[in-house]
Amino acid sequence: MKPIDTLSLQLAQQRQTVLTKPPGSLGQLESIAIQLAACQGNACPKITKPWITVFAADHGITEEGVSAFPAVVTQEMVKNFSAGGAAITVIAKQENAVFEVVDVGVFNDVSPLPNLISERVAAGSFNFAQQPALDNAMLEQAMRVGKNAVARALSSGADLFIAGEMGIGNTSSAAVIISQICQQPIADLVGRGTGVNDQQLQHKQHILSAALNLHQANMQTPEDVLRCIGGLEIAALTGAYLACAREGLPMVVDGVIACAAALLAYEMQPAVKPWMLFGHQSVEPAQQAVFNRLQVRPILDLGMRLGEGSGAAMALPIIRLACALHANMATFEEAQVSDAH
Amino acid sequence: MKPIDTLSLQLAQQRQTVLTKPPGSLGQLESIAIQLAACQGNACPKITKPWITVFAADHGITEEGVSAFPAVVTQEMVKNFSAGGAAITVIAKQENAVFEVVDVGVFNDVSPLPNLISERVAAGSFNFAQQPALDNAMLEQAMRVGKNAVARALSSGADLFIAGEMGIGNTSSAAVIISQICQQPIADLVGRGTGVNDQQLQHKQHILSAALNLHQANMQTPEDVLRCIGGLEIAALTGAYLACAREGLPMVVDGVIACAAALLAYEMQPAVKPWMLFGHQSVEPAQQAVFNRLQVRPILDLGMRLGEGSGAAMALPIIRLACALHANMATFEEAQVSDAH
Repeated sequence: MKPIDTLSLQLAQQRQTVLTKPPGSLGQLESIAIQLAACQGNACPKITKPWITVFAADHGITEEGVSAFPAVVTQEMVKNFSAGGAAITVIAKQENAVFEVVDVGVFNDVSPLPNLISERVAAGSFNFAQQPALDNAMLEQAMRVGKNAVARALSSGADLFIAGEMGIGNTSSAAVIISQICQQPIADLVGRGTGVNDQQLQHKQHILSAALNLHQANMQTPEDVLRCIGGLEIAALTGAYLACAREGLPMVVDGVIACAAALLAYEMQPAVKPWMLFGHQSVEPAQQAVFNRLQVRPILDLGMRLGEGSGAAMALPIIRLACALHANMATFEEAQVSDAH
Repeated sequence: MKPIDTLSLQLAQQRQTVLTKPPGSLGQLESIAIQLAACQGNACPKITKPWITVFAADHGITEEGVSAFPAVVTQEMVKNFSAGGAAITVIAKQENAVFEVVDVGVFNDVSPLPNLISERVAAGSFNFAQQPALDNAMLEQAMRVGKNAVARALSSGADLFIAGEMGIGNTSSAAVIISQICQQPIADLVGRGTGVNDQQLQHKQHILSAALNLHQANMQTPEDVLRCIGGLEIAALTGAYLACAREGLPMVVDGVIACAAALLAYEMQPAVKPWMLFGHQSVEPAQQAVFNRLQVRPILDLGMRLGEGSGAAMALPIIRLACALHANMATFEEAQVSDAH
């Protein structure tokens, strides 16, 4: 992983103390600017070209009836991403971010479509209630799909990377991955996903508990966890996060699925962490376990639970404003403003 | 107060249920769009011309040593606002908001300066540890200064109003106002303002407890509270908020000082509330008492405590994105996406 630039970090910290405001009074906006300074090696960082890749894949576990929406919605939403009608595409347009959707393994091939990159590893993951979600080759290939997206972003001059996901059933994978790594009871971490009712939630918990038992003995490493529980888009996200930190591209992590992938990347390489900002607090309970383990605090808390990278993308203007404040506010000396008593 | 448009509210609520996302999954972004629809009388609201007025005034209470910064900083910051070096002016520029600063009663007249409107009511408020902060004429005149700002905003075509404030000492006024109206112990509500240390905080609490005792018997109405505790910029904010609701201009309320003024406006005219969005959770403890009383939830929670309207202005891009999502996302029907099971 690329080391951050500690000199720029110190210069940015110092600059925050001389801007015309009580020290610390910009709260998280100060720490965002300082972190990005350390990532960019620039005491006054800025975001000029944010990049958003949504990784889409289907999940064998949907056979078990763990989701409020039918699996066909994954491919339908891929078309919606391509056409610009989804939340993430509306935000991307508004925020001038480059947008692409990558098919890592939707059940049915819907290519070719505008803005769709087809890098299909398989027609969905296996049902992890019965067998490992991925085999070794699928795992490796899906992680490479993530790395490829980061390569495209870098070659187009991107300076901030957001990975989103689409995959009906993927809050099930995320909850089990986080439960296993954080060693927290699965029952505490299963959420409603796209909106299962009380009875469906109980069923989802039952299925996921059993799946965790099935694989537990085979999950020694984070790679094992990812292979056993999947899915393909989560592997792609994990590969993308590792590639970002390796290449020195700061990233904004989204909701619970993205956090599961960020957690896996962190367990594989803890040095990814300084390259990560966390966009928002989702309402999915498993996400908090990741924040606790990584000791991080998200930027927004808007009660969102949509995925697609939408919560990370919503944080973009806040990150940009943090950089603008850091760069453009006057210092006490420049403005001839008196300091504290 | 102007009534909101309940038909547009219903149409907006209905639209949120047919956009391509699980119902409710955009959280507060949904309620922001719906509230603005009701304010604008437009099922697809948008913010095209946000307006920011910072009201500045000095406080006699600063004689008592309740602030970490000297009172001269108020006028120094007015110059900094005029020159564009302050946090709020950086945010205003980035967000294409019209910006002005109004001198409602800084100790020393610093006019003329660019972007500064001089509507001086007095050279600061009186020291409310010893006497009422304002007299009746000052109160009335300062509230009119707020109304005048709203009139300027409306005549320039503004569709969202943000009031900020600058006044060394004004967290003291805000804490006492909120304590009196919410009937919560002053000791629970006094914060560090621009950054007093533990000893200064104890002194601040002592001074404010005594001041509350001094005026308590004379504070029967919200107008009494505002007159006894001031300050001039808080009266201007209160007048501005009332004028916004009267004229039908939605507003974003800032931190603890702005919330004290919003609370006063609400106590005078409860029908102001549907016109108010709340920008952010400040770290000042008194603000939460206002949120509890008004039963509202702020948009951001970034650990800010700067005032100037900065927390409200930081919420601008979130509000704009809420409107963009509401207007531009595809419906299930348009995108041919399947609904829940």
